[in-house]
Amino acid sequence: MATKPIRKAIREPMRTSSRPRARALGIPFDGEPGPLNAITDVAGVEVGHATIIRGNGKLIVGRGPVRTGVTAILPRGKRNFAPAFAGYFALNGNGEMTGTAWVEESGLLTTPIMITNTHSVGVVRDAVIQWQVKRRQMPQPWSLPVVAETWDGRLNDTDGFHVKPRHAWEALDTARTGRVAEGCVGGGTGMIGYGWKGGIGTASRRLERKAGGYTLGVLVQLNCGRGKELTIAGIPVGRKLRAESETAAQPDLGSIIIVAATDAPLLPHQLKRIARRLTMGLARTGSVSGNGSGDLFLAFSTAAAGESSDDVASVKMLANSRMDPLFTAAVQATEEAIVNALVAAETMTGINGERVEAIPHDRLIELMRRYARRSESAS
Amino acid sequence: MATKPIRKAIREPMRTSSRPRARALGIPFDGEPGPLNAITDVAGVEVGHATIIRGNGKLIVGRGPVRTGVTAILPRGKRNFAPAFAGYFALNGNGEMTGTAWVEESGLLTTPIMITNTHSVGVVRDAVIQWQVKRRQMPQPWSLPVVAETWDGRLNDTDGFHVKPRHAWEALDTARTGRVAEGCVGGGTGMIGYGWKGGIGTASRRLERKAGGYTLGVLVQLNCGRGKELTIAGIPVGRKLRAESETAAQPDLGSIIIVAATDAPLLPHQLKRIARRLTMGLARTGSVSGNGSGDLFLAFSTAAAGESSDDVASVKMLANSRMDPLFTAAVQATEEAIVNALVAAETMTGINGERVEAIPHDRLIELMRRYARRSESAS
Amino acid sequence: MATKPIRKAIREPMRTSSRPRARALGIPFDGEPGPLNAITDVAGVEVGHATIIRGNGKLIVGRGPVRTGVTAILPRGKRNFAPAFAGYFALNGNGEMTGTAWVEESGLLTTPIMITNTHSVGVVRDAVIQWQVKRRQMPQPWSLPVVAETWDGRLNDTDGFHVKPRHAWEALDTARTGRVAEGCVGGGTGMIGYGWKGGIGTASRRLERKAGGYTLGVLVQLNCGRGKELTIAGIPVGRKLRAESETAAQPDLGSIIIVAATDAPLLPHQLKRIARRLTMGLARTGSVSGNGSGDLFLAFSTAAAGESSDDVASVKMLANSRMDPLFTAAVQATEEAIVNALVAAETMTGINGERVEAIPHDRLIELMRRYARRSESAS
Amino acid sequence: MATKPIRKAIREPMRTSSRPRARALGIPFDGEPGPLNAITDVAGVEVGHATIIRGNGKLIVGRGPVRTGVTAILPRGKRNFAPAFAGYFALNGNGEMTGTAWVEESGLLTTPIMITNTHSVGVVRDAVIQWQVKRRQMPQPWSLPVVAETWDGRLNDTDGFHVKPRHAWEALDTARTGRVAEGCVGGGTGMIGYGWKGGIGTASRRLERKAGGYTLGVLVQLNCGRGKELTIAGIPVGRKLRAESETAAQPDLGSIIIVAATDAPLLPHQLKRIARRLTMGLARTGSVSGNGSGDLFLAFSTAAAGESSDDVASVKMLANSRMDPLFTAAVQATEEAIVNALVAAETMTGINGERVEAIPHDRLIELMRRYARRSESAS
Repeated sequence: MATKPIRKAIREPMRTSSRPRARALGIPFDGEPGPLNAITDVAGVEVGHATIIRGNGKLIVGRGPVRTGVTAILPRGKRNFAPAFAGYFALNGNGEMTGTAWVEESGLLTTPIMITNTHSVGVVRDAVIQWQVKRRQMPQPWSLPVVAETWDGRLNDTDGFHVKPRHAWEALDTARTGRVAEGCVGGGTGMIGYGWKGGIGTASRRLERKAGGYTLGVLVQLNCGRGKELTIAGIPVGRKLRAESETAAQPDLGSIIIVAATDAPLLPHQLKRIARRLTMGLARTGSVSGNGSGDLFLAFSTAAAGESSDDVASVKMLANSRMDPLFTAAVQATEEAIVNALVAAETMTGINGERVEAIPHDRLIELMRRYARRSESAS
Repeated sequence: MATKPIRKAIREPMRTSSRPRARALGIPFDGEPGPLNAITDVAGVEVGHATIIRGNGKLIVGRGPVRTGVTAILPRGKRNFAPAFAGYFALNGNGEMTGTAWVEESGLLTTPIMITNTHSVGVVRDAVIQWQVKRRQMPQPWSLPVVAETWDGRLNDTDGFHVKPRHAWEALDTARTGRVAEGCVGGGTGMIGYGWKGGIGTASRRLERKAGGYTLGVLVQLNCGRGKELTIAGIPVGRKLRAESETAAQPDLGSIIIVAATDAPLLPHQLKRIARRLTMGLARTGSVSGNGSGDLFLAFSTAAAGESSDDVASVKMLANSRMDPLFTAAVQATEEAIVNALVAAETMTGINGERVEAIPHDRLIELMRRYARRSESAS
Repeated sequence: MATKPIRKAIREPMRTSSRPRARALGIPFDGEPGPLNAITDVAGVEVGHATIIRGNGKLIVGRGPVRTGVTAILPRGKRNFAPAFAGYFALNGNGEMTGTAWVEESGLLTTPIMITNTHSVGVVRDAVIQWQVKRRQMPQPWSLPVVAETWDGRLNDTDGFHVKPRHAWEALDTARTGRVAEGCVGGGTGMIGYGWKGGIGTASRRLERKAGGYTLGVLVQLNCGRGKELTIAGIPVGRKLRAESETAAQPDLGSIIIVAATDAPLLPHQLKRIARRLTMGLARTGSVSGNGSGDLFLAFSTAAAGESSDDVASVKMLANSRMDPLFTAAVQATEEAIVNALVAAETMTGINGERVEAIPHDRLIELMRRYARRSESAS
Repeated sequence: MATKPIRKAIREPMRTSSRPRARALGIPFDGEPGPLNAITDVAGVEVGHATIIRGNGKLIVGRGPVRTGVTAILPRGKRNFAPAFAGYFALNGNGEMTGTAWVEESGLLTTPIMITNTHSVGVVRDAVIQWQVKRRQMPQPWSLPVVAETWDGRLNDTDGFHVKPRHAWEALDTARTGRVAEGCVGGGTGMIGYGWKGGIGTASRRLERKAGGYTLGVLVQLNCGRGKELTIAGIPVGRKLRAESETAAQPDLGSIIIVAATDAPLLPHQLKRIARRLTMGLARTGSVSGNGSGDLFLAFSTAAAGESSDDVASVKMLANSRMDPLFTAAVQATEEAIVNALVAAETMTGINGERVEAIPHDRLIELMRRYARRSESAS
């Protein structure tokens, strides 16, 4: 029985990925994406998911139904554990991202980044350490893993604590470069965005050669926003298109985790600047970062090995005055990753028959056309 | 000769205010503004401007031409110097806002808020202290005034240091409740926004009764953004409408100061939350907060006298869970205040015949119509 | 077998507490302590420990020997889960304190504070949520527990993950007001301070009536400092008294968690001020907060129910200008709590026969006398 | 008449420097200082003072008596304006240090560091810009100078605004490498520390070769602390030695500005770590950083040119794990710089005949002996 969710996890991305992405629907986005339009466009970055979908019907805490999972981002893949410079920003701290005290202090990301549900942060955190112990890849005599979360209690038996260490290991072990499964996968499995089914989304931007040719990729676990707020490509989609599943008075109980990766040679304080800009991409989709939202952002660079065996390392640093194209890329990729999460996610029924619809592609296309955005951009 | 700029300063608001505001052009904004749609909708808040416009033609540093000024915001007017709870946020710190170490530490705003040009922060700061010394209104044995700035060196002889203590006093002494002059006035006189003439803008939101009926007002000194980025009501105005005065390669040398006032009973840490949200209103107008931008935000509440003669004061605190409508108001009012600044500003010619155009109202109206936003909202 | 560590946990405090405390040795400290000279002098605060001591000899990861545990601090005891205002400060972030993003954002402490070893933060965190789920005491639909740690890998099989959910529950369930066990108990079981056996320590200060009569208590989990740095009552004890167990070149692999509680009516930003002062108490004992040290501090106030069912709560606030006696109390109590941890801890032998000595009381007394500190103060 | 204070300024250091420094009195300090035991041991660092001492007797605001000045620290001297990496920390923000938003954002110190009295921060700030304009040394099209302060209103006619632009220029123009005048000079002229006459103090530490051989220097403008708190070399000097000039109930109206310079190759986030440690040096002298104290700290490194004409710069970075000796140096140098300020300062009579005594050297020496610290260290 234990293997079932794991098999599911492997099947899930395949199915999900058969859906078109936001660009394919004709939604206009600014900027030039990388070849995969994913965080994995940044060389070395690997992403893995463990998806746990089990049971139906009435909630029995500890039994299910289960709609949750774990997503892993490995900054340099499974073979290179050199730390990466990183910066952190909390837009609204109704959430958890462990390990950030050390990111702030050292300027370094020394572990994978994990994303799961709120009540499984602990198990995933310790599981990462166990995984590092086994591989003898402890960054210090101890480890301070980065694990973030959003809350999936509307669809998932979240107080049933169904995420186990093996799910964290599965996400880590199956992480790979290349295409990233989006929507109802990994940590995003049971998430909701702007009243629609949410989850994992990703996007990237590649800078022009004269701007350095760097790549910046973003991955989000989207669980935030109230339906009426949703804005796509500047269009107030949320006021035209209301999810039936959203009660009018529904408070914003969601959150969003945003992770940005880049190969641009940025120092920790510069990555903090990038992390702060992720706010602006989120803002473009309509959120005001409600009180209930845990909006925690992390940005890292794969360019420099921040720490080395040498006492004094040589590191590269992009001039501050050259950062604007990266700021723009961060904002644009965040906006697109969020829309990608919505577009990829499929309708899901969870605990107590609770059903959260996928955003209807046809009506989205129609809205783009009506607001004269789609045609002009697609032409 | 010294009196001329002062007379000018008094005339200026009158003239500027004859232009329509953004709403009157049919630009749709969400939310319900207060009666003045201005920061002065928050009871007690007073705003004053000193505008210095003098000379034309070639720049002779120290002589002119001069296009600058000072804006003063008095949280409780000129008669009540009780401190106000306040919170600060630096989105991008390529700028100055003095006094914020004490705001952060004490949670209190103990002086007026002044906004001027970058190179006149010092003179204005000391002038505020002199003004307080004279009125015997020192908050402590010393004073740590809040003075912010943006850079007006494209239109103004900013290295000529034309702001004098009397201009700061003028802004303070002429501050009043009621309508707020916008556009090319006060600290905003020589500013540029998204390639167009910028300056001072304001807006407000009044919450529904069930949300507490609070008012939140915003005042901006707009000097940021590249032309192509400008977004109004979700429409990519900047790609349709380019200011001739903007060179394609023009870097973002601007900044924006945003001040939010509210009568909601918020504690300092809650006002910090408001200050952080101002980012999201700015984001809606297209900025990515470029490296050159000093984007510094302050939020204060007039509700509670934070400090009193008593050792222990009783203060009111809005529940965190009730803050969402204020977050929404802060985002909306910021967006509208920025557009108001653009719409109010008039074409200006400054040093060396440098000319920065006002955004053309007719073309804005046309764009709103074309993108199907105006009609639906205005109807 | 599972019950053994639990029985041990209950026995441990008794035994440990038979040792004299620092004051009883004649070490002079400034200020007036509360009746217990403990964090529990702040009314309502409860402290509980689960101590796990098992096995001897060679380290077999996963088997032991085990020298670890969990300490719980309940701000208002086990029956009152009203949130408490709180503030956080990271002096050196080579450590973990989960839940602080929410403390920072909301200004509220909404869960117990747990302290354990570095690699057991996750299990303890999720166990707190399970405990809250069971008691239907979730602060929001979700919970974001505060769990901190220091590293006990020199004495404990820390990569063996011996802390289980039941240990967290035991610490919570056995928490009580009154005397607090110090030294090798709870989370402090396997810790080392300044080369000597460290662990849990506590102290308090009661302010004079004219200063408000407030109480401020501190609890530390001491695991930091190099032997030569140790300073007690201003005397360079570390240079006179070297633990044989400390290698000369031993780097500082420790950390210190400091928690301050007070009944003074402080707002969140004021508690942050208290949290920052804990640094200065630590400094008095000689530490420079080495790179390897996770020095994370939290301060909370039991005075006001920060959040209530009402939309607008009335809260009390001590004037900033009245905070100095609390700053002094925070510094003094921190200093004494650290010395109490050292004085209470007993020599321990852990993995691979590694032995860490208790600081010798007789030699401490002698040093105090030699440096003319003891007599003058004791007289 | 204008030249008098300037001549005074040049004479002052000479006279002041004839007094012995703390080490010469036999006060024991840990660690190895550089050749000058001053911030100028860091190659390239220049320090200049303008001291303004004028008039005696009754205070007439605007007339005097005047006891104030300006101190300038040039990170790379007057010929090299390349930015230096820097980090900032506010221990207690009842003070002002302008320019820190940009230090935080960019990681760069792009102007000299100026220290003056509280009410002269503005004039000095704008004067630095004028000085840069004249020298065509603007770091950007604009400048955001770093200017800090402490309050000298007990001895100085501080509301008389006697600091003029020329005093800032004098401090800048007379800055030099080599010995640094201490005590009642520059910004420190009218300052008070722990109830005794305070002012400027400096010290340095040179690391052992195996620790990299780096130099770290500190300069303080000491104006903080209550008399009873003063601790020197661990000895409670303040309880044995009370300045007659200190009223028992005197609140702490002071502040301390601490600047650390190093040639160690530290990145901005690492310099923030250094800045935070300065707290611990201050703590060793007894302060608890009272509410009235503006305790603002800045650390910079002369090692790397943080920004260059190149888009991508190569910078050196010391491993985090190698920072401990620098932390120790920062703490030790801060402690000694504070004591040097006290020992160097001479008794001063200011406004209304207010007199603040210099700490008596003979009694200090006696105390050191009594507490058995002097002999052992001096031998």
